[in-house]
Amino acid sequence: MSDAEAHLASYWGARPTFAGVPAASLDALETPDVVILGSPIDWGATYRPGARFGPGAIRHADYLGEPGRPHLPTGIDPFAELTVVDVGDLVPAPGYLEESLEMNRRAVARIAATGALPIVLGGDHSITYANASGLADVLGSGTFALVHFDAHADTAETHMGEHLYGHGTPMRRLVESGAVPGNRFAQIGLRGYWPGPDVVEWMREQGMRWWLMTEIAERGLGPVIEEAITHVSHGVDAVFLSVDIDVVDPGMAPGTGTPEPGGLTSRQLLDAVRDISRAVRIVGADVVEVSPPYDGPGGVTAFLANRVVLEVLNGIAERRRAGP
Amino acid sequence: MSDAEAHLASYWGARPTFAGVPAASLDALETPDVVILGSPIDWGATYRPGARFGPGAIRHADYLGEPGRPHLPTGIDPFAELTVVDVGDLVPAPGYLEESLEMNRRAVARIAATGALPIVLGGDHSITYANASGLADVLGSGTFALVHFDAHADTAETHMGEHLYGHGTPMRRLVESGAVPGNRFAQIGLRGYWPGPDVVEWMREQGMRWWLMTEIAERGLGPVIEEAITHVSHGVDAVFLSVDIDVVDPGMAPGTGTPEPGGLTSRQLLDAVRDISRAVRIVGADVVEVSPPYDGPGGVTAFLANRVVLEVLNGIAERRRAGP
Amino acid sequence: MSDAEAHLASYWGARPTFAGVPAASLDALETPDVVILGSPIDWGATYRPGARFGPGAIRHADYLGEPGRPHLPTGIDPFAELTVVDVGDLVPAPGYLEESLEMNRRAVARIAATGALPIVLGGDHSITYANASGLADVLGSGTFALVHFDAHADTAETHMGEHLYGHGTPMRRLVESGAVPGNRFAQIGLRGYWPGPDVVEWMREQGMRWWLMTEIAERGLGPVIEEAITHVSHGVDAVFLSVDIDVVDPGMAPGTGTPEPGGLTSRQLLDAVRDISRAVRIVGADVVEVSPPYDGPGGVTAFLANRVVLEVLNGIAERRRAGP
Amino acid sequence: MSDAEAHLASYWGARPTFAGVPAASLDALETPDVVILGSPIDWGATYRPGARFGPGAIRHADYLGEPGRPHLPTGIDPFAELTVVDVGDLVPAPGYLEESLEMNRRAVARIAATGALPIVLGGDHSITYANASGLADVLGSGTFALVHFDAHADTAETHMGEHLYGHGTPMRRLVESGAVPGNRFAQIGLRGYWPGPDVVEWMREQGMRWWLMTEIAERGLGPVIEEAITHVSHGVDAVFLSVDIDVVDPGMAPGTGTPEPGGLTSRQLLDAVRDISRAVRIVGADVVEVSPPYDGPGGVTAFLANRVVLEVLNGIAERRRAGP
Amino acid sequence: MSDAEAHLASYWGARPTFAGVPAASLDALETPDVVILGSPIDWGATYRPGARFGPGAIRHADYLGEPGRPHLPTGIDPFAELTVVDVGDLVPAPGYLEESLEMNRRAVARIAATGALPIVLGGDHSITYANASGLADVLGSGTFALVHFDAHADTAETHMGEHLYGHGTPMRRLVESGAVPGNRFAQIGLRGYWPGPDVVEWMREQGMRWWLMTEIAERGLGPVIEEAITHVSHGVDAVFLSVDIDVVDPGMAPGTGTPEPGGLTSRQLLDAVRDISRAVRIVGADVVEVSPPYDGPGGVTAFLANRVVLEVLNGIAERRRAGP
Amino acid sequence: MSDAEAHLASYWGARPTFAGVPAASLDALETPDVVILGSPIDWGATYRPGARFGPGAIRHADYLGEPGRPHLPTGIDPFAELTVVDVGDLVPAPGYLEESLEMNRRAVARIAATGALPIVLGGDHSITYANASGLADVLGSGTFALVHFDAHADTAETHMGEHLYGHGTPMRRLVESGAVPGNRFAQIGLRGYWPGPDVVEWMREQGMRWWLMTEIAERGLGPVIEEAITHVSHGVDAVFLSVDIDVVDPGMAPGTGTPEPGGLTSRQLLDAVRDISRAVRIVGADVVEVSPPYDGPGGVTAFLANRVVLEVLNGIAERRRAGP
Repeated sequence: MSDAEAHLASYWGARPTFAGVPAASLDALETPDVVILGSPIDWGATYRPGARFGPGAIRHADYLGEPGRPHLPTGIDPFAELTVVDVGDLVPAPGYLEESLEMNRRAVARIAATGALPIVLGGDHSITYANASGLADVLGSGTFALVHFDAHADTAETHMGEHLYGHGTPMRRLVESGAVPGNRFAQIGLRGYWPGPDVVEWMREQGMRWWLMTEIAERGLGPVIEEAITHVSHGVDAVFLSVDIDVVDPGMAPGTGTPEPGGLTSRQLLDAVRDISRAVRIVGADVVEVSPPYDGPGGVTAFLANRVVLEVLNGIAERRRAGP
Repeated sequence: MSDAEAHLASYWGARPTFAGVPAASLDALETPDVVILGSPIDWGATYRPGARFGPGAIRHADYLGEPGRPHLPTGIDPFAELTVVDVGDLVPAPGYLEESLEMNRRAVARIAATGALPIVLGGDHSITYANASGLADVLGSGTFALVHFDAHADTAETHMGEHLYGHGTPMRRLVESGAVPGNRFAQIGLRGYWPGPDVVEWMREQGMRWWLMTEIAERGLGPVIEEAITHVSHGVDAVFLSVDIDVVDPGMAPGTGTPEPGGLTSRQLLDAVRDISRAVRIVGADVVEVSPPYDGPGGVTAFLANRVVLEVLNGIAERRRAGP
Repeated sequence: MSDAEAHLASYWGARPTFAGVPAASLDALETPDVVILGSPIDWGATYRPGARFGPGAIRHADYLGEPGRPHLPTGIDPFAELTVVDVGDLVPAPGYLEESLEMNRRAVARIAATGALPIVLGGDHSITYANASGLADVLGSGTFALVHFDAHADTAETHMGEHLYGHGTPMRRLVESGAVPGNRFAQIGLRGYWPGPDVVEWMREQGMRWWLMTEIAERGLGPVIEEAITHVSHGVDAVFLSVDIDVVDPGMAPGTGTPEPGGLTSRQLLDAVRDISRAVRIVGADVVEVSPPYDGPGGVTAFLANRVVLEVLNGIAERRRAGP
Repeated sequence: MSDAEAHLASYWGARPTFAGVPAASLDALETPDVVILGSPIDWGATYRPGARFGPGAIRHADYLGEPGRPHLPTGIDPFAELTVVDVGDLVPAPGYLEESLEMNRRAVARIAATGALPIVLGGDHSITYANASGLADVLGSGTFALVHFDAHADTAETHMGEHLYGHGTPMRRLVESGAVPGNRFAQIGLRGYWPGPDVVEWMREQGMRWWLMTEIAERGLGPVIEEAITHVSHGVDAVFLSVDIDVVDPGMAPGTGTPEPGGLTSRQLLDAVRDISRAVRIVGADVVEVSPPYDGPGGVTAFLANRVVLEVLNGIAERRRAGP
Repeated sequence: MSDAEAHLASYWGARPTFAGVPAASLDALETPDVVILGSPIDWGATYRPGARFGPGAIRHADYLGEPGRPHLPTGIDPFAELTVVDVGDLVPAPGYLEESLEMNRRAVARIAATGALPIVLGGDHSITYANASGLADVLGSGTFALVHFDAHADTAETHMGEHLYGHGTPMRRLVESGAVPGNRFAQIGLRGYWPGPDVVEWMREQGMRWWLMTEIAERGLGPVIEEAITHVSHGVDAVFLSVDIDVVDPGMAPGTGTPEPGGLTSRQLLDAVRDISRAVRIVGADVVEVSPPYDGPGGVTAFLANRVVLEVLNGIAERRRAGP
Repeated sequence: MSDAEAHLASYWGARPTFAGVPAASLDALETPDVVILGSPIDWGATYRPGARFGPGAIRHADYLGEPGRPHLPTGIDPFAELTVVDVGDLVPAPGYLEESLEMNRRAVARIAATGALPIVLGGDHSITYANASGLADVLGSGTFALVHFDAHADTAETHMGEHLYGHGTPMRRLVESGAVPGNRFAQIGLRGYWPGPDVVEWMREQGMRWWLMTEIAERGLGPVIEEAITHVSHGVDAVFLSVDIDVVDPGMAPGTGTPEPGGLTSRQLLDAVRDISRAVRIVGADVVEVSPPYDGPGGVTAFLANRVVLEVLNGIAERRRAGP
């Protein structure tokens, strides 16, 4: 009997690395193109927690055992084009948000320092502050734009009183610190009843751009994505992509912490993510707010998040193939 | 420590009034613009019960603690424009449908008698007979149209034998009593295999208008909503809006009693409801058939119903702002 | 008290035949137009099993007690136009796939031999090999085309090593045996990262045609369905229709074994199935990969599959009405 | 291929009769020993509905396909000892409780009139009033005792106001009507905080006997069952057995409408039911308050209820074997 | 129509106060006997979060609408014997554990300062540090014992690195601060594989007493409870009772964060809690680690926790009745 | 930042080896004491599948991150006493049962050939035939007894017709092949209505011994375990332990394929397994029939199975400590 008959990690069960890519250690990173990092922090969520189990569920939402994920539309396998490794998850301390975010930030900076592109699996959206800040620590503040798919703007002034960090404030903190200036933001899919006019006014003053679901419903998503790409291509040539899974309608992606009805379809998100990753130079990404306890027996939200990562990789691989 | 640190009703837990609006009593209503009433009646359902827990789940489906729900597309907060109170739920007797509906009807009439607009959280669709009848008791029969989002026409002749009331018959009873004449009906989203040709013929004879999902799929929802608005604007200037949550595809809104695949998306329903509430004068509304036991751990159907109420209020607020 | 008050099979509970049509036995089939057969085989699934409970769940997903399912768009009741019977489910042996598929194949052949059109409720997709082969045993190889709604092409060379059968290989086996030549295939809704380029190349060599979700998202489903109908109308005038429920987005149809995000909406699938069944001569059909354990408390995927069968019947009934 | 390969009703799917016994019609009952009847009434429930799906779920909770259910402890197959048929479910009208109960009562009386023993699958506990009354219509009031497993005494004076019927009042109505005098009652498993002292006092005045869970925890269930058997054997030699599944701890039987923690184990209930059915002459039985929507994916409460029916049949069969 | 027909807070829906007792404010407490406080903190949990929804779910797990909860074994209604109010929930900041615990501690101290007995609904077990410390701030350190039902000893030295607070360390912190000296602890129900021998040795050195499930299984729970009562009655006459719901077997109480198989039954816990509350003077209590997202559709764990609170109140009421 | 901050495999998420023991390969086994092997075969299940996900779920059901699992009752850490490695899962072919079992048998034989004790995580119970046969291939037929916890005897003559293998026949096949003679069997926890008297007679003829749940309920489990140990200690001094998780009441362990109400409690199983593993020489073990899709959001059945493995290891470690 060959080793193929009995190997570690069930064919169906838990997959220890994303898509089965090689495991790696932050302490000994060679020079990969992409590094997957899990950030199981959910104590920045103001409503339903559970996103700490997001990284595990996203890696798990995979029914393909063999290596290779060739993309049907192109035949390109992003894992053949790109060197991707998975360094596993941070082990932060529940209830100690600032220390946990700092740990997250340092990990992202260490990845970026090797020249690799970090893709962070959340975790709640508070981690995007850490992710983009860690990237700015290496690449420099203001050197990249942030394209943000979300139902919520996440630009609140404070979190539950006077606290600074949380899943409703990361974009504010990034603008304030200068890591990502306001005019480098493109937010897609906003809807609902938050934040209020004072915060919206602040966003406008910072030069932030956003596209509401009501506008997307009227104009179609295609023209909106084109506008967003044009907007973020002014002045910089790099983009951090942050995908809050709640940008998709909770009817299609129920496993999330702060469901806001009336969102994108899964198909729309997948195509938009790939289009952007092909059109601009991605320097980092995160997929956040997948909360497995709310996901139902099929776990379909984790599957969607897994495919969002794959579509980012596909866009990058296509862009690399196309060359300069 | 201030009272803000410890107050009744958890930030995350049960919210005793819709969106935290003031509680009120039917016995001492001042002159609000809108009154929220829960009607936890589900013994008119022929298939899956559970809608008795709809009012509680709809109020609960809310992650915003602070007062105010400013609408992102306009910045208008409907609770700043309108005085809204919540009188809680009726306490009807399970298994005694006619008495329960009569209790519901009187409650709606008492609300309407103050000049307020009632929004009733169901419960199964049998309550729309009570809601519209109670309204007609005050405003007069035939004085308002009924716009009805639903997978089903709800115009059956009888309920399980010779019984008159139930969730399949309310529209028939309203036409027969004259509370809402047939030519004042606009039904949107019908599909499937019910009712049969004899009932459809009866509907046609009454002058009822409807738009099937197959037509909506072909023509788009926008033109259909415009036609419906035009239709109900003939001869009267008031509309009762009845939203059966099963008008949305059960794949996106699984927590309902009589799922019929092939419906609207959540986004379509939210936009249509707001468009109508902005275009015509709403005199009452209900949101029915939310059945929490079938809703899965995310509770996404209750969230959707909560937002339907908010979009009605937003449309009304925008209309009021626009002035005559 | 009449027999109507107490009869076998609950109004709400288990319905022993699809839509309450007459039960029949394979050993004594008269000359029905359509025969429903359950094939509860799920040991050909490589990932999540559970589809063995598909046939029961699909029959059960029905809230209409009375006989007759008149279609709202036309008023036609397919059960008035067509004689439909239900022969129940096969009783195959779990873990003995080849014998089970052979049992399935013989049952379909016996149905086809009576001149009736078999509609098979799966079960995983391995059964389509048996279904189309059984049909070819009677009608002749190469005499019909195969329209295939699916997220996956199901044209793998082997199943988990060197095994021939399984839910990833049926289309390959059909092409190889000649039962359905490659150029008679139209596959709609493919997406994701499987199969790889070598298999895609093989498909191309066989003359297979397919339409990816990315193309459908761009062009719309309507033109794609028209092209598919044209394609399969060359040279033969008969079609076997195979619907893998995972062609619909798993966010809307979570109860399935191999969820691949980014699919059709329920509405799109229902309309497409009816359009095809109206446009071409259907000689057999199956609906597969409904896995109830993953479907959530609402059971919405089973409801969708039930309606897919009804839409096939509606298309056939409309076609028959229209005449030659 | 023989008929055994494809037969009506899936091996795994919906079983149209309990344990596959022959179907029968109330209009043409021969002389069976036992008649199974479903009573899908749940509009007498004051809290969580869903028990209307109890009869279907109880029949379904069965993994044995072959006929015969030989009991391991004795080797006796109750279906070999007794003629058992299943007449299916009543089709009552949701929301019309009194008419529905009357329909239930007449059905039970018709069964009893043939000399058969009715076993009724509920449904909520309001149906026990109908079941025992229908039996008394034939056997005579006061001619049988009632052994009642339940967390609740179900002796409330009224139901939600002044209504007489509901799932909290059946035992009161039976005592008042004389169908079952108070001193013929033995209630086992009561606990919690209901009913209040006035009702308890009324129960005491009627000569009712009951055993609380606190007492059972201290003394063991064995002695309690012996006392109950002795108590109900005074003066009459016949017993109606009513099992509310909520007598079992909701941690073990979650699919029920009014969960009260601290109950029996499943093993205790099964043994007690068999012991009683062996020790006294059972003239009728019901199993009520199984609410599938609350039962979780395993459906374990329905399985338990199914086995309760089997243990009743086993006890009766053992008694018959033992002879006089 | 009277006010009784339509009142705030559904009969079935969300109950804003525990058992419907009067609401009160921490800022204006009169002199109640017992104050219910919710502490929705779950960012001290190292594994599954969700306990922030515990307070809401515990209040909600109640099917009795009328005031009064007379205990069946005694007829005593604890709400008639005791003045109980509910001050609602704290509004702490997710991710800021130390500040949140400090807020919790001050709230408990304010309650204790009025002479009232606080009962805190958690939240994860980290809050017991705050609860007992707040009590000690008023009553004095070392003046009360702590009876602790739990699967885990919660005496870890640190939380995820060098952090002091978390749901695995509260008992250590209480011993170290002197609020509750080691020899005042009685821990019941411990099992499993944590903590390790060094921590167990530390516990022994502090004079802590505990009873493992293996011992309880052998000797019975009754003698163990007696020993525990004797142990904690040495030297002080007051007890804080901390019930981690995971002391019950997760098979019966699945809605919890750190399930450890092999626990008590629900019945055992309820009786033990009442026995202790009757035997000693309770000065405070908490019920923690109820995590609704893991509780399944029946929500049975929240029901159990609700009854634990009622049994504490019953024991206290019985003790007060019995007099000195 | 040290490697401890970011490492492979989430603290909370998927654990690639049981309890984090070292991974190993069947092709290069050194000389461990115990080898964990996953056997994700569920196509031998006649009713509910899903046990293929058992091995992953059992490894995952673990909230302890640090190495070491010291047992509270003794302080012994089995992983310090024993060298345990995990070789991962077999990759068998769904639908090809006999080949899959053969692969399983060879893997167990290879483990046994190194002198190690295999513990196999199932999978359905058909694998016990492979496990015990593989062991007999190395140790010799008839050299060990088989202690079998189960609700079912699993001694059916055939599987669904004339097939030999399946989850109802393994014990028959073992007796017939002589791998484990009938008089070496001790079966504990049998109940229900299967198998029939002819099979029971065959079991008796083979000298098999079993203890029914009815007997355990009467006599207590302790004396039964003692009798079983005595029985299997005649003539051989080695035992294979097979634990079908359905021996526990499905109310406490719902995630299983063939639920039979009325079983052991979790506590009883854990203690019995440890007692046996301490009293006799265990040469192999399996834990089977854990079916995650039926386990509910808490996953409590997988947790129980994980602890069964730990208790086996604890018993072995205690026995080794005690010495000869």
